[in-house]
Amino acid sequence: MKAALEKLHAIDREYRYLERASAALQWDQETYLPPKGVEERAEQLALLEGIAHERLITPETGRLLGELGSVSANPRGDESLPAIERDFLRVMRRRYDRAVKLPADFVSAAARAEGLSQAAWAQARRNNDFAAFLPHLTTMIDFARKKAEYWGFGDRAAQRNSAQSLYDGLLDIYEPGMPASEIGVLFTVLRDRLAALLKKIKLCPQPDTGFLKQTFPIEAQAAFNQKLMAYLGFDQERGRLDASAHPFTTTLGADDIRITTRYFPGNLLSGLFSVIHESGHALYEMGFPAELRRTCLADGASMAIHESQSRFWENVIGRSRPFWQGLFPTLRDCFPEQLGRSSAEALYRAVNEVKPSLIRVDADEVSYSLHIILRFELEKRLISGELAPEKLPAVWREYTREYLGLESDTNQRFNDADGVLQDIHWSMGSFGYFPSYALGNLYGLQFTQKLKSDIPELESLIAAGKFERLYTWLKDTIYCWGCRLEPAELLFKVTGAQLQVNPFLEYIEGKYTELYGL
Amino acid sequence: MKAALEKLHAIDREYRYLERASAALQWDQETYLPPKGVEERAEQLALLEGIAHERLITPETGRLLGELGSVSANPRGDESLPAIERDFLRVMRRRYDRAVKLPADFVSAAARAEGLSQAAWAQARRNNDFAAFLPHLTTMIDFARKKAEYWGFGDRAAQRNSAQSLYDGLLDIYEPGMPASEIGVLFTVLRDRLAALLKKIKLCPQPDTGFLKQTFPIEAQAAFNQKLMAYLGFDQERGRLDASAHPFTTTLGADDIRITTRYFPGNLLSGLFSVIHESGHALYEMGFPAELRRTCLADGASMAIHESQSRFWENVIGRSRPFWQGLFPTLRDCFPEQLGRSSAEALYRAVNEVKPSLIRVDADEVSYSLHIILRFELEKRLISGELAPEKLPAVWREYTREYLGLESDTNQRFNDADGVLQDIHWSMGSFGYFPSYALGNLYGLQFTQKLKSDIPELESLIAAGKFERLYTWLKDTIYCWGCRLEPAELLFKVTGAQLQVNPFLEYIEGKYTELYGL
Repeated sequence: MKAALEKLHAIDREYRYLERASAALQWDQETYLPPKGVEERAEQLALLEGIAHERLITPETGRLLGELGSVSANPRGDESLPAIERDFLRVMRRRYDRAVKLPADFVSAAARAEGLSQAAWAQARRNNDFAAFLPHLTTMIDFARKKAEYWGFGDRAAQRNSAQSLYDGLLDIYEPGMPASEIGVLFTVLRDRLAALLKKIKLCPQPDTGFLKQTFPIEAQAAFNQKLMAYLGFDQERGRLDASAHPFTTTLGADDIRITTRYFPGNLLSGLFSVIHESGHALYEMGFPAELRRTCLADGASMAIHESQSRFWENVIGRSRPFWQGLFPTLRDCFPEQLGRSSAEALYRAVNEVKPSLIRVDADEVSYSLHIILRFELEKRLISGELAPEKLPAVWREYTREYLGLESDTNQRFNDADGVLQDIHWSMGSFGYFPSYALGNLYGLQFTQKLKSDIPELESLIAAGKFERLYTWLKDTIYCWGCRLEPAELLFKVTGAQLQVNPFLEYIEGKYTELYGL
Repeated sequence: MKAALEKLHAIDREYRYLERASAALQWDQETYLPPKGVEERAEQLALLEGIAHERLITPETGRLLGELGSVSANPRGDESLPAIERDFLRVMRRRYDRAVKLPADFVSAAARAEGLSQAAWAQARRNNDFAAFLPHLTTMIDFARKKAEYWGFGDRAAQRNSAQSLYDGLLDIYEPGMPASEIGVLFTVLRDRLAALLKKIKLCPQPDTGFLKQTFPIEAQAAFNQKLMAYLGFDQERGRLDASAHPFTTTLGADDIRITTRYFPGNLLSGLFSVIHESGHALYEMGFPAELRRTCLADGASMAIHESQSRFWENVIGRSRPFWQGLFPTLRDCFPEQLGRSSAEALYRAVNEVKPSLIRVDADEVSYSLHIILRFELEKRLISGELAPEKLPAVWREYTREYLGLESDTNQRFNDADGVLQDIHWSMGSFGYFPSYALGNLYGLQFTQKLKSDIPELESLIAAGKFERLYTWLKDTIYCWGCRLEPAELLFKVTGAQLQVNPFLEYIEGKYTELYGL
């Protein structure tokens, strides 16, 4: 049994290295790849994905899992294995089951198509040209549907999963065990209460944000971001920051976790809050304990749990009053001309301005989840086939009007680049990913309730820029588990409850009632 | 036969993509990898190298080569294949023969050790700490010796290659068919004539280089280098420039050829001439014709032929009077304060100052080859075992005194960082590579003789910044062959002669006689 376990660990290790080699090529594609290198890069990625897949699904993996599985079905055998190895087997088994159902040529073809689609998206976005992206989007939808079918979801597998749609199969990649129906229930409450709050806020005077409408040179933004990362505890010997069209975090090695942001000279906050958000992801990845770091257990419990960490840092910490009391002087020193006559309180109010925007990643906390619910509704219909991809730009506009109250004839320019083309996700075939962001808000605030009861003096620590106790709490409570627990198990272990909308809504309603004097 | 050929092309293609994925990870390691990511990166590279090797040496490759080999042994069969496919088979056979003799675990272990050694070298160089690098150097020597042994060189294979040393086996990687004895004959003449020239020059007054002893901010150097690359015809949609400890060129894809340079605010020429040198390599890589680009034939004929291209651009073009007549105004516009009162002629004279230096890559044209001959002598003795690696720093100093007339007590600081630790090559196990640089000088000037007889007006074209006819000549004469010809065959096809020292020595003696008024 020990020998079998060691062999399985070797398979896991090689798979992880191959995945991280692919991650390095993808990171490069988003940051430094010369324009004409895109096509061959897609071929290289397809080959690497194919090899990783092929090596994971060898009959030997199946045999080893079977051997160890019959042991784990036996209570005595089970107890003979350390808990961590039982968790390792659970994750390997899920990964193997998922992979073995996909034919190798399908995996290669999907990887190749994703590479090309992503490149086409980046160009279509630059040119505001949805038509150029449409064939790739259609291909991505086909691949996603086929993938869910292979996994046994959807009508064709009606006998096995009669209640589960193709879309449920995709959701399950990111949030195991949470079908669209369950998400729909949570999102309905969320949408109604957020829309009501938004309505009230619209009647109130807005904070002064005039001092942010200046030029903040990119070099100075980049220099501040280096300080910001260090302030947040990002270990710059174990990771780095670069610029890309779409901010992201990627793990190229246990000690090589990279984040990206993007810069606009006229928008200080966009680049800055992306750095805080991505640092939240990176701190999670950097924080897995040593005993997990050489296994597949060094991973987030789910995408929504990962987002709970990034959005916690971005919003609960990064948009809080004490955070800017602590950090504002540093920011002002980087931009003395622009911010010399401003204050921490003014900045706190400005970064919490509620003003529905066309761009998801620039959205305020109140309207953010509405962007997600919009995408959830649309991708559900794209995958079910109810919505034809060529109709997407029109329907996007319609939903944007309905959910966010934004019209194409406001003084903001409305175009596809700032609409349906704004996100990278669908270009990579990542349908089912978006709900994680809003679910992350819910997880995050439910965790925060517990955190605040454990560390009542949290606010004064943040104001002093002292994050040690917060890290320790995050490490001991969340990071330490890696993906040993399913998301619902982790939530229950930390908070003793199931996923709820109320902690998030109470936080939002409380914060903005005070800010806008509702 | 057609089916076999297609299968062999598929094997070649996958091998190339895996090599280029490795090249991407190595490029990243030299440019952007966070310090603590080094160890796992070495593991990832070892895995990729191992997979590439394993897939190349499958029994199927042997079977396919055998099948096609028996055909190519038959004259009728031979003629039935297009010439390009026969060349493809020659290169694949050589690659397969080389690879199949190395055990897979040796290849993985070597790749892992190289990754660690390179990282240790970079740190040792920063810290001027040869002792920290010594164990890695010893390991690299062992791996190199073992490699040559596996290939059948050296004493243990005396029956087969009685006249060929282990070092010949390593030389053969870079310069097929040229043993140390042959190189030794050329290098002896070279050393004597260059030493004599150096002696004469030492008695002459030096050109004014005071105007170069100013501060040239790195950002401005980087901006000029972008213009310089474009001026030289480097297609920036098919490649890019970054900074690294040691300048290099690497091919990450047929349309993704990257160069690096390094910057010193007090030394404008170092970064600039590295860019010209590496662009020479890159133009060769970018210039292979379309029909070769999806095969292993899209490669340099040998390392020395590659160096003939880089050193041609760096010296024959980049250190010529007409070149600076054309480019000086652009350089002056980038550095108006520093160069506003200077001239093209002054710069031409300054970039050709003959002043032996401790650093090979900063050496002038006259002393450069002496740096190489020094390394050739030392690595020959390291590989034969005559010279113990721990003695290297002392012997390096001794040879530096003898060959270059430089003492450790000159006003230049002499230390191992600027001595034996200055080059990356040995840290990567690349013994046998150095001679290519000096051989490249010889090839380059032999090609140049022919070029000048074909384009008599070359100098006025260069002065006008018009490189089109030069490119066309290089493409039609050299690039077009890729590695279809062995280096000696290519040289003979272009010049009708074997490798000689005279074209290079006549160029050098003529140029410096004029410059120094000898």
